[in-house]
Amino acid sequence: MRSLVLIGHGSHLNPESALSVYRYAELLRTQGVYDEVVEGYWKEEPSLRQVLRTCASTDVTIIPMFISEGYFTETVIPRELGLGHQGPVPPEGVARTLGGRTVRYTLPYGVHPAMTEVILERAREVLPDSSGEDTALVIIGHGTTRNENSNKVVHQNAELLRARGIFSEVHALFLDEEPKVTGWRARVGARRVVMVPFFASEGWHTLETIPEDLNLEGTVTTFTPEDGHEGQGEQTVYYAKPVGTHPAVADVIVQLALEARGSSVSDGDHALVHQAAWDALLERARRGLRLGEIMTSFQDGLYELRHALDEGRSSETLTTFVTPEGLRDHTRLSESGDYRPVHTLRNLRRGWRAVLSGADLRRALHLLYPAVVEESHAHSTHSLRPTPWATTARRQTGIYARVQKATPEQVEQVAQEVCGGCLKTRLWAGERLNQTFFGGVPGAIPCAEACTYLVAEIREEVAGKRGQKGGHHD
Amino acid sequence: MRSLVLIGHGSHLNPESALSVYRYAELLRTQGVYDEVVEGYWKEEPSLRQVLRTCASTDVTIIPMFISEGYFTETVIPRELGLGHQGPVPPEGVARTLGGRTVRYTLPYGVHPAMTEVILERAREVLPDSSGEDTALVIIGHGTTRNENSNKVVHQNAELLRARGIFSEVHALFLDEEPKVTGWRARVGARRVVMVPFFASEGWHTLETIPEDLNLEGTVTTFTPEDGHEGQGEQTVYYAKPVGTHPAVADVIVQLALEARGSSVSDGDHALVHQAAWDALLERARRGLRLGEIMTSFQDGLYELRHALDEGRSSETLTTFVTPEGLRDHTRLSESGDYRPVHTLRNLRRGWRAVLSGADLRRALHLLYPAVVEESHAHSTHSLRPTPWATTARRQTGIYARVQKATPEQVEQVAQEVCGGCLKTRLWAGERLNQTFFGGVPGAIPCAEACTYLVAEIREEVAGKRGQKGGHHD
Repeated sequence: MRSLVLIGHGSHLNPESALSVYRYAELLRTQGVYDEVVEGYWKEEPSLRQVLRTCASTDVTIIPMFISEGYFTETVIPRELGLGHQGPVPPEGVARTLGGRTVRYTLPYGVHPAMTEVILERAREVLPDSSGEDTALVIIGHGTTRNENSNKVVHQNAELLRARGIFSEVHALFLDEEPKVTGWRARVGARRVVMVPFFASEGWHTLETIPEDLNLEGTVTTFTPEDGHEGQGEQTVYYAKPVGTHPAVADVIVQLALEARGSSVSDGDHALVHQAAWDALLERARRGLRLGEIMTSFQDGLYELRHALDEGRSSETLTTFVTPEGLRDHTRLSESGDYRPVHTLRNLRRGWRAVLSGADLRRALHLLYPAVVEESHAHSTHSLRPTPWATTARRQTGIYARVQKATPEQVEQVAQEVCGGCLKTRLWAGERLNQTFFGGVPGAIPCAEACTYLVAEIREEVAGKRGQKGGHHD
Repeated sequence: MRSLVLIGHGSHLNPESALSVYRYAELLRTQGVYDEVVEGYWKEEPSLRQVLRTCASTDVTIIPMFISEGYFTETVIPRELGLGHQGPVPPEGVARTLGGRTVRYTLPYGVHPAMTEVILERAREVLPDSSGEDTALVIIGHGTTRNENSNKVVHQNAELLRARGIFSEVHALFLDEEPKVTGWRARVGARRVVMVPFFASEGWHTLETIPEDLNLEGTVTTFTPEDGHEGQGEQTVYYAKPVGTHPAVADVIVQLALEARGSSVSDGDHALVHQAAWDALLERARRGLRLGEIMTSFQDGLYELRHALDEGRSSETLTTFVTPEGLRDHTRLSESGDYRPVHTLRNLRRGWRAVLSGADLRRALHLLYPAVVEESHAHSTHSLRPTPWATTARRQTGIYARVQKATPEQVEQVAQEVCGGCLKTRLWAGERLNQTFFGGVPGAIPCAEACTYLVAEIREEVAGKRGQKGGHHD
């Protein structure tokens, strides 16, 4: 049995941030190469700190869903996963044994050699007859930032494609560093120019800044000599979609995961602790379970899930879901329209029911309350170890390093405001929890350590920026 | 059977605002002159629109807990109560029959002649030997504002006390109009000066602006000729507590209520609709009730109330309350420390239980979820009439009149944000509710019309002030 884990950045503010990771996870799930495909996030749930606990098998391969190496893939993710590794990841990945699981951590998909083919695919989509003397390829990168070392992989791909001789010219141009994409007409001589953004997702840069900076009009734009670039003939730009949303990326992920396995042939087993937690959950659910704001009932082999405030409400007045993903998407926002990066905030919307098999109930609960079943069961068996605030604070780096300066009073004050809206009980702050929902107390859910949402809020407090409307972190 | 209703202003922001009304209600309850003493508020719950429905008897006397006549006592309260009266209230009050109840509405307690004695009481407290040639009394009023016509009653009291000759001088001085209290040394010649604030409550004016403007140091302050007022001898100021917090005000209220009854000797009966609602509730509670975020259980003749998220939690880990008022005070703020002017917001704190008799359960539910039982029962018997937004908007006056300019889109957008955090279902906006918690759906609570909290938020939206942190209304 094998688990594949996709790691995304996620966001505290933007409900769309995780969508591309969702899509690849679903695509890979339907392919069935892995027994399960789990997502984990830096700024959503399950968090990087929790995601391993949510894996059903003892054989786990973790793919960072980033376009290039950098701060997240080399520092944040290995640290939060507890890999005991920092810095560049070797091509074969990093392998560890953690909590009885074999865990392999790979390079980000963006630096895999197969991405060269994805660039070509994107180019072909926008200009099928790219053969021809007079066609240039421009790979657009962001340029290296504090967090991403993105120019290296763009230059490498340009070099490889130049060597293949498919295009008359191949250029690597950037938004934020030289050679800049805005100066393309001075560099590119070909009459036809295919531009492929080497970006992870369709977003602000690919949809707005690049088209605006280059005066692109949709997919195909023709620039005449009068367009302000003297001494040059007519040039037509074919603007492709970003590489990071191409379905073929799913194949790159499988390839990466395969390579990380190396010559290992043995499969993993069921992770016993995980299985015990979910067996207990399903047993409890058959008798009718209340977990946080939801409740289950069981009839004719199917589980029904609904908001406990909707108990007894006639089914016709509720929206019925039959997939965990449908329910996840429906409950992403609260009734007030607020995004819920922390799933145990007490603002789960009402008005729905989900009718699910046992396997789907497991997945629905994983999506509604990520890691809650595993952590609560661990707490009920006295094996959940809380991480005190000081330890969480010391672990932080980059812009979050300053939370170490927060006074205990600041931490407590921000936590009261932020965590006051959350179902969980802060074991990491010394709060006690004698029972869990396994013991029949719906609201009893342990919190083993400060989440990234709270860390970000405490950073705001230390920076003197809290109390203004809206968060400043994403 | 007779009901006494005390009407306060209340606040959307300040959890302390209603405390003085609470205190008088409790004092009058212990005196037992009335079968029940109910509170109602302009900006808290039960609202002025709901409070009559929460009265158990058909004989209701309503006292506006204001220090003087003005906009609230003459316009807002009669309008919201549906008295069909606007403008000055005659000394004998206004009597109406509303919803099968005899309703008497009186003048505010502050203008009752007995308040003259309360002023004297406050003066005696701070200077017991006020007899003497050389003692002046200064009654400090706020001065007339947009909302209050406070100078009239202060002048009247000064005149009456002057006529009684107890003090060598009696002055009516004001914060915001002439003659101003800051000029007291130019007007008051006596060596000893008793100052009694004619204010409803201990607050910003009595605790801060007056002492600061006059350089008062605690209760007794001596001013020498060198204090910048040439030609005057030493003067000592005795600063009293405000009249509106004196226990004797409870007697003034009873007196007012008695006078409003006039020569009527007949008592009222149980209000049948009210009794039916609470009989149904208690019957339901004996079988175990879930209402909004709470649940009840019944054992050995006592009801236990707790947060539904605390179901099954061992009692020793919960704070136990044995009075409805203790529970009310404990649940005034959310776990995040937010004030809860709207009691059906989904942020009721956890961690408590209340063990109560049937009568106390009724009162506890009235305090936790004001008017919810009466309105929900009315809805379940098809007798709750929703008030559409347009009607609510047209009724508004003063600073709220501008909500009539809100577009339907603005109303819906603000309502989604504000009401999205509330348990209630907006019948006034066309939402449907086929069942209520009486029928076993815990979260099914009807909302018959926009509350003042939403009205205030819509006003902010129309004024372009919404979206800033914190509300602007109180």
